[in-house]
Amino acid sequence: MIDEQSEEVLRVNEKFYRALENGKLDLMEEVWLKDPRAKCVHPGWPMLWGWEAIRQSWKNIFESGVPIKVQISNVTVEVSGDLAWVTCIEHISYVIKDQVQINLAQATNIFERQGSSWLMVHHHASPMPVPKKVDEKLQ
Amino acid sequence: MIDEQSEEVLRVNEKFYRALENGKLDLMEEVWLKDPRAKCVHPGWPMLWGWEAIRQSWKNIFESGVPIKVQISNVTVEVSGDLAWVTCIEHISYVIKDQVQINLAQATNIFERQGSSWLMVHHHASPMPVPKKVDEKLQ
Repeated sequence: MIDEQSEEVLRVNEKFYRALENGKLDLMEEVWLKDPRAKCVHPGWPMLWGWEAIRQSWKNIFESGVPIKVQISNVTVEVSGDLAWVTCIEHISYVIKDQVQINLAQATNIFERQGSSWLMVHHHASPMPVPKKVDEKLQ
Repeated sequence: MIDEQSEEVLRVNEKFYRALENGKLDLMEEVWLKDPRAKCVHPGWPMLWGWEAIRQSWKNIFESGVPIKVQISNVTVEVSGDLAWVTCIEHISYVIKDQVQINLAQATNIFERQGSSWLMVHHHASPMPVPKKVDEKLQ
């Protein structure tokens, strides 16, 4: 059975993906730790250091205006004291020229507890191959 | 100033890269938590779950016998209670047909304290572009 803290971490993790899917910068701001220690690796990008750089990157991504759908699978969570880490596979689909494209990324997300809130302090996503069976599951 | 726990985490992180560089499975075994919770993402691979799968992957990699040199840069470490996370850039160089090839990977490594030992519980490495300035630094 999953404990309360793990549930809360997964709730914030889910909120992160809803912010991503809906291009909501204000929701993204609620998820992240506003700290120079925050770090972010978008798939194939060099790592961004600190909340300001991370915020700017989401702003740029959201302003590009591509509507996407984001689902996650294979989710794991580990909580230890005031730190927690989540792994999951991101299924990011979008439409280009009437064709649905699906990109998969492997993500490692780290969260820190600040008072009673869990906040994202690190996001590392990297492209992964799309095996046929995963592709089919999303049809 | 870096504290004692952070120093110890970085020492184990460094040991991981020496195991990788020297193809030492016994050293790799000393570094990792032998647990089904251990996870590992080699650059471009799907995530491996559990120590047994991770051990087998290192065995296969080491048996391929390609001599490599591994350096790390841009190292950060955060310790909170019994959990710690490290980020770094891996510079992996090897010789193919008398040409030195350099691959860069962004790594997120997570460690768990078991008694007085810090052990790797998650390794996520993903390919990153080689900017010219980084390449030049290694000459």
